[in-house]
Amino acid sequence: MLDFVTLGETMVMMNPDESGSLKYIFNFKKQLGGAESNVAIGLSRLGFKTGWISLLGADPHGEYIKAFIQGEGVDTSQVKFTTAAPTGLFFKERREIGETKVYYYRKNSAFSTIKPEDLNEEYIAQSKYLHLTGITPALSDSCYQTVLRAIEIAKKYNVKISFDPNLRLKLWKNKNHMKEVILNLIKEADIVLPGLSEGQIIFDTNNPEEIAKKILGFGEKIIAIKLGPEGSLIADSNSMKYVKGFKIEREVDPVGAGDGFAAGFLAGLLKGYDLSQSALIGNAVGAFAVTVKGDVEGLPTMDELQIFMGEKEEIFR
Amino acid sequence: MLDFVTLGETMVMMNPDESGSLKYIFNFKKQLGGAESNVAIGLSRLGFKTGWISLLGADPHGEYIKAFIQGEGVDTSQVKFTTAAPTGLFFKERREIGETKVYYYRKNSAFSTIKPEDLNEEYIAQSKYLHLTGITPALSDSCYQTVLRAIEIAKKYNVKISFDPNLRLKLWKNKNHMKEVILNLIKEADIVLPGLSEGQIIFDTNNPEEIAKKILGFGEKIIAIKLGPEGSLIADSNSMKYVKGFKIEREVDPVGAGDGFAAGFLAGLLKGYDLSQSALIGNAVGAFAVTVKGDVEGLPTMDELQIFMGEKEEIFR
Amino acid sequence: MLDFVTLGETMVMMNPDESGSLKYIFNFKKQLGGAESNVAIGLSRLGFKTGWISLLGADPHGEYIKAFIQGEGVDTSQVKFTTAAPTGLFFKERREIGETKVYYYRKNSAFSTIKPEDLNEEYIAQSKYLHLTGITPALSDSCYQTVLRAIEIAKKYNVKISFDPNLRLKLWKNKNHMKEVILNLIKEADIVLPGLSEGQIIFDTNNPEEIAKKILGFGEKIIAIKLGPEGSLIADSNSMKYVKGFKIEREVDPVGAGDGFAAGFLAGLLKGYDLSQSALIGNAVGAFAVTVKGDVEGLPTMDELQIFMGEKEEIFR
Amino acid sequence: MLDFVTLGETMVMMNPDESGSLKYIFNFKKQLGGAESNVAIGLSRLGFKTGWISLLGADPHGEYIKAFIQGEGVDTSQVKFTTAAPTGLFFKERREIGETKVYYYRKNSAFSTIKPEDLNEEYIAQSKYLHLTGITPALSDSCYQTVLRAIEIAKKYNVKISFDPNLRLKLWKNKNHMKEVILNLIKEADIVLPGLSEGQIIFDTNNPEEIAKKILGFGEKIIAIKLGPEGSLIADSNSMKYVKGFKIEREVDPVGAGDGFAAGFLAGLLKGYDLSQSALIGNAVGAFAVTVKGDVEGLPTMDELQIFMGEKEEIFR
Amino acid sequence: MLDFVTLGETMVMMNPDESGSLKYIFNFKKQLGGAESNVAIGLSRLGFKTGWISLLGADPHGEYIKAFIQGEGVDTSQVKFTTAAPTGLFFKERREIGETKVYYYRKNSAFSTIKPEDLNEEYIAQSKYLHLTGITPALSDSCYQTVLRAIEIAKKYNVKISFDPNLRLKLWKNKNHMKEVILNLIKEADIVLPGLSEGQIIFDTNNPEEIAKKILGFGEKIIAIKLGPEGSLIADSNSMKYVKGFKIEREVDPVGAGDGFAAGFLAGLLKGYDLSQSALIGNAVGAFAVTVKGDVEGLPTMDELQIFMGEKEEIFR
Amino acid sequence: MLDFVTLGETMVMMNPDESGSLKYIFNFKKQLGGAESNVAIGLSRLGFKTGWISLLGADPHGEYIKAFIQGEGVDTSQVKFTTAAPTGLFFKERREIGETKVYYYRKNSAFSTIKPEDLNEEYIAQSKYLHLTGITPALSDSCYQTVLRAIEIAKKYNVKISFDPNLRLKLWKNKNHMKEVILNLIKEADIVLPGLSEGQIIFDTNNPEEIAKKILGFGEKIIAIKLGPEGSLIADSNSMKYVKGFKIEREVDPVGAGDGFAAGFLAGLLKGYDLSQSALIGNAVGAFAVTVKGDVEGLPTMDELQIFMGEKEEIFR
Repeated sequence: MLDFVTLGETMVMMNPDESGSLKYIFNFKKQLGGAESNVAIGLSRLGFKTGWISLLGADPHGEYIKAFIQGEGVDTSQVKFTTAAPTGLFFKERREIGETKVYYYRKNSAFSTIKPEDLNEEYIAQSKYLHLTGITPALSDSCYQTVLRAIEIAKKYNVKISFDPNLRLKLWKNKNHMKEVILNLIKEADIVLPGLSEGQIIFDTNNPEEIAKKILGFGEKIIAIKLGPEGSLIADSNSMKYVKGFKIEREVDPVGAGDGFAAGFLAGLLKGYDLSQSALIGNAVGAFAVTVKGDVEGLPTMDELQIFMGEKEEIFR
Repeated sequence: MLDFVTLGETMVMMNPDESGSLKYIFNFKKQLGGAESNVAIGLSRLGFKTGWISLLGADPHGEYIKAFIQGEGVDTSQVKFTTAAPTGLFFKERREIGETKVYYYRKNSAFSTIKPEDLNEEYIAQSKYLHLTGITPALSDSCYQTVLRAIEIAKKYNVKISFDPNLRLKLWKNKNHMKEVILNLIKEADIVLPGLSEGQIIFDTNNPEEIAKKILGFGEKIIAIKLGPEGSLIADSNSMKYVKGFKIEREVDPVGAGDGFAAGFLAGLLKGYDLSQSALIGNAVGAFAVTVKGDVEGLPTMDELQIFMGEKEEIFR
Repeated sequence: MLDFVTLGETMVMMNPDESGSLKYIFNFKKQLGGAESNVAIGLSRLGFKTGWISLLGADPHGEYIKAFIQGEGVDTSQVKFTTAAPTGLFFKERREIGETKVYYYRKNSAFSTIKPEDLNEEYIAQSKYLHLTGITPALSDSCYQTVLRAIEIAKKYNVKISFDPNLRLKLWKNKNHMKEVILNLIKEADIVLPGLSEGQIIFDTNNPEEIAKKILGFGEKIIAIKLGPEGSLIADSNSMKYVKGFKIEREVDPVGAGDGFAAGFLAGLLKGYDLSQSALIGNAVGAFAVTVKGDVEGLPTMDELQIFMGEKEEIFR
Repeated sequence: MLDFVTLGETMVMMNPDESGSLKYIFNFKKQLGGAESNVAIGLSRLGFKTGWISLLGADPHGEYIKAFIQGEGVDTSQVKFTTAAPTGLFFKERREIGETKVYYYRKNSAFSTIKPEDLNEEYIAQSKYLHLTGITPALSDSCYQTVLRAIEIAKKYNVKISFDPNLRLKLWKNKNHMKEVILNLIKEADIVLPGLSEGQIIFDTNNPEEIAKKILGFGEKIIAIKLGPEGSLIADSNSMKYVKGFKIEREVDPVGAGDGFAAGFLAGLLKGYDLSQSALIGNAVGAFAVTVKGDVEGLPTMDELQIFMGEKEEIFR
Repeated sequence: MLDFVTLGETMVMMNPDESGSLKYIFNFKKQLGGAESNVAIGLSRLGFKTGWISLLGADPHGEYIKAFIQGEGVDTSQVKFTTAAPTGLFFKERREIGETKVYYYRKNSAFSTIKPEDLNEEYIAQSKYLHLTGITPALSDSCYQTVLRAIEIAKKYNVKISFDPNLRLKLWKNKNHMKEVILNLIKEADIVLPGLSEGQIIFDTNNPEEIAKKILGFGEKIIAIKLGPEGSLIADSNSMKYVKGFKIEREVDPVGAGDGFAAGFLAGLLKGYDLSQSALIGNAVGAFAVTVKGDVEGLPTMDELQIFMGEKEEIFR
Repeated sequence: MLDFVTLGETMVMMNPDESGSLKYIFNFKKQLGGAESNVAIGLSRLGFKTGWISLLGADPHGEYIKAFIQGEGVDTSQVKFTTAAPTGLFFKERREIGETKVYYYRKNSAFSTIKPEDLNEEYIAQSKYLHLTGITPALSDSCYQTVLRAIEIAKKYNVKISFDPNLRLKLWKNKNHMKEVILNLIKEADIVLPGLSEGQIIFDTNNPEEIAKKILGFGEKIIAIKLGPEGSLIADSNSMKYVKGFKIEREVDPVGAGDGFAAGFLAGLLKGYDLSQSALIGNAVGAFAVTVKGDVEGLPTMDELQIFMGEKEEIFR
């Protein structure tokens, strides 16, 4: 019996030792990143039982990724390897001027060949939550079909679906198609976790409350809109509320904050907390995530989280 | 007026700081490698005028590669950039047990989209030599067409064609097709520079003299068969001769030895030396190439080469 | 149902970036090492089901060790954490003149507080093999009692006991006590895997055949005496035979060879091979182990092992 | 004739190359740290004659520590080595969220075996100041006895005693015992240099003036209470005054600030300045200390200090 | 036909991996720096045709410098090598307290032996701009004579002269002589680009407008006074105007900002923009320059510049 | 009372992280080297009282060198600093093909300004040995005068003079002048320690025995001719004998072997051993020196030396 199962691609990340154009950088560290496994690791570090379904290249990069995620206590029994294509890879480029950039080597990667038949019905059936993102359907048509099949299984067994749009504009050839797919997945989800700029792209508004209302227009859902350091807006059919974020003195790397929020927010729901409490935990885990170079190395254990949240600790009781 | 022009893909190389499985290695250095640009750089360091025709991704990796090769004095006026695909990339895995392995991220790379129209007829026309390898036709059909177009131009303007089979089995789906293409290019070439194991694959014999005879069966050519530390066998329609190699105390990285030989051998021919003298220079440059981690960083200047070749120096007079 | 379970301390290893006295070395890499977990990892990489029983400090070093070993597919459900003492640690000092030295910070470590009650009877009962070394009883009296309790459980459930003396002279205060303890454990074991110098210390002879005979004097056992690059001597009550080792061009770090042998030898037995075949596999895995800096990073997968053993591959069929 | 002599443990520090949990960090730099030797080095860099009494492990870590401190011009003629226990060691863990953490490997270290007989009476007798901290008595009973013996010697020869409580809660098993010991040492001291949080623990108040008054209640003393970037409060039986601190743009590592203050403050007293001037120098040296990773590498020379203090330079005249 | 030609020394820079006194730093990265080549590289990255005249040591440092600058697309056909002296070198010392310091190994460097006869008249004649700094005349008398000869050539062919005083007090033995030389060069220049502190030293005022007026007193000139993050003051005989600078969140290394300004400002003039527009571009390029460790690695391409300048983009047509 | 005093320049060494041309190397480690201080450190590590007279730049490089050598226990009371010139510096270039090269930045260094008046007569007078090399007189005329003055003092107080020619051809403009100076110093010395190639240059023969005879022709002396891994030839007016060297498996860096020999040989003489025993110790210390990257980090302590020399240990009794 798992608390949480997710499906997605995880890639090797080549992280430069300095900020600035990669043209002039010669030393790189190997880490990894994948929106879905980031959330699974986040929940596992907090003490929940999680599983990650994936397909990796039969190469040392794939072996590394599996070992790392398994080492974090995430169940990897549904991770397969293929010799048909390499494990996905990306380079990060941190800039002090302009935005962090990412250079992908993920087109036709091992994961992009995953297909619905790769899913194990019983595995998903035994979980409380199924977590999906908008990245997977962008990777290939068979990836999209696999997402739809996972949803079908979840619906059949009353597994709750959480969905983070995670728009990666570089991955979509056709923006209209992107919108259509994302809207379709939002409709299927029980929990929707967009960022503000994603709301803007999908719903043409950057007003969090309006975004929430539009999503609620598709039916009864739990919504948490991520507002960066400001915190988050939570909403369901009964209520809507802003929950404050936590200030970090020095943000080292903003990537992974959203995944941290998702992990913390779902942790709260799994513990039976209300939406505000859950969002507060989400905000805290998101704050931890940005304090290190890397997507997952900053995610807290339950002990670290409780110390950080200090007096609010009673939440966890 | 150039001495030498070549056409091919150059990739960023991620070089691990330790030997052993990449699974356990976290620190990488960025270098670069490409069989054809290796030869161009080798000749440029020896004082010849060389040019390199290529297509790179419009990304920092592509910018780095162009800057490096231009910095070596190779003419890069025919190097273009495309936003349609990323610059090719590979990881090296050095092993103390078993062979060095290579993990490619070059499928559908920027270079693989090069096409015959990208060639500038006058540019090739003004060179003494055109150097090609068996890697390029393996990358895509348009790459192969581009090679054939380059040969057509060379023939029209009496540019001598040198060809290094450089078999990369991983890149070819169909071994029969590979043989056919390579044989076709051998026939077109004036100078053929195979390694022993390549001779084995193409001509089913590892006897250097037999390989040479088979190639000579296609018409009048200069042939140099690379025999590793042992040296090389040279042959033309009049003669056949073994030329001894140079011993290096500690081989650091065997990759690049063949390209070093090609650079040295062509340098000899360009200087007007006979085949034996040219092969001796080829053997020496090949020895330099294996003394460093990296394909090109060990290639000698004319000064370094002369000091190394010592008493044989009179060759260069 | 496990193929193999083991019990022992694993420590963080600080590995210097250069050889020579640590006095002058400033950069260190973190890895890990533990004779017993080395064997468990070796067998896991070869495809067997293994478990490791241990006690770690509740600190980031302990978390790292658990994550690494779990990531290798070894079952860590019996690994506990204590806040009472820190995770063990050691520095390696590689020398080009004289022997590799080791500086321990393991006295009163977390593991040294393990006690018989920490063992789970059913866990050991369900394994085919229990692997023990002579290191554990040297760490503390409660460690020794825990080893004896593990043997008691194994005997009760007919779990085969394999024992590697692994003498660490620095850890024993009293050499006579050491001999007595080691001899006692040899008597209890079904499989005994000493090195030559260990035989010398315990039985006052460095003749492998005599050592084997002395051990056979304690009853029916399988014996494999490790002879370094030379290979090994295997013996049981019916036969005695030398099995040749594999030559490695450049030994990077000799530590871990014996653990590699143990993993390969037990793999052979688990596959049902005869002693000679098993020892050959042991020799091969031991050869892999010395090709990298680190105890476990060189251990092969079954694929790598089969390619290396080449024509002898039929063994594995 | 020395200006200053001190007694204490110095450990090797393993400093990670990144901030965040050590679980995920693989590269470490070796430095060193010890509250007492930090002060000795600080005074030596400022031009004073200092000596450090200690006991190190007879291992490369101990050799490194002695060489470093001797290289700083501190007299190390009273530093001995023992083969009975290893040199103390600790790992630093810098966090962007939460506090810097420290993982000690100092229990039963070489220094913890120091005893009163190891002290050389004449050596202490010839110094102007004897500096002690609350760390040493926490390490072992023989350490505490050694501190008491040093005080006895100092009293006999009218050597002034300066004392920095330096509470390390992790090192004390019994908080009441800790308080008792610290209060005892405060009573013996001529100069007391507590931090604010230490005042809180010992005197149950975080009001600097109240802390000062309580300490003055034990007799005539010079008191400087360290208030971090805010500066310090100085007091004696005649006066009490706040002295402002210096602002640093980017604090790199807060550890060592207090030792820097102590060095600067004692430098002032040794030069014959009044308390305010001395505290100003202390504040400045403390500011220098936090600008680098490491306890002592930021400590200024007299030249650097004078340039920094600019117009206030006349102090030093 | 070149847009821009410059003349000056470029040195290897040893850049420490940490801030703080170099006494305690052991790891260094090799980069390069030279005020004049910095500007040439800046203009080349923005798409202009530039050339750099210099003299390097015939050593690997000289080869590296030439390759790097040639790799940036700067014409290096006028760069010569000498065996008579080594390539110049300097160490950077970044401090969190106090100023960045520089330790030169440039006295009697290869470049300091350059002389007027090394200049190629036609090369300078075919450029639109000749850029000079106050560093070159400080290096040796023959360097000063070479600068005067370059001016003579420029005047003869109506090449515009831009001049950046770039006062390096360490390089001048006699401050009066320095002032005299600098004033002489200011008089000869068409464009003068001083910093505020340089204005102070030469004209005894730190009022930008007064400095501008004093320079205008020497005749018709374009003046841009660099005011750091505040921006710049531009002036000619008709007008005087402040142009705002761009704020960077975290300045990594201030060195190179002035050279970036010069590159951007001259780029504007070459494009035919007015002084305000040109200064705005200068301010932007200067902002880019301070975002990386190193003088030139932060300089933007035209694409990066346009994205950064956003709405102001229309400037660039 | 010192056993040994020496006089010479010590420089910062920039040591590349890879072998091959420095053109392509970006990461360097800082170490140090100086023939005379190498010997002083070698003797100090072996337990003798040594002193080093020198002049350094008043910069962090100079501070580092003094701290390092002082940290090794060498007396540095006669080391002065000057602001007039920088501390000497050199880059090492290790090559797998061809010889290790060195690029100096020592011309007009701080040390080259040392002069006879900088010597303290009493300091030299109280030593048993004064050690000099042929490097110092090559650095400047005032350096040569200082050497002559030191000899004068030594003669006056019956301090024995040992002399190592240490020819650095790059440092001498005139080879005849070099020969003359070196011969003059050989004549003055009591102990002469040339290498074979130095003998060749000075005496036009590479026959060790002939070299020894020629030197003995100048008067009664002790001579040890260094023959590399082969060992050494020792001679005085009564005897001549070859003493075998020690084999090292992997020589890491040959630089420093001669200084190691000198340290070991003088250690033997200081202990009162005969020439053969002393040469054997010299050979052993020389072997240690080549096992690490760096001139002095491999030099043994007396303990390490005794373990290495094993059964020959009785020498040291």
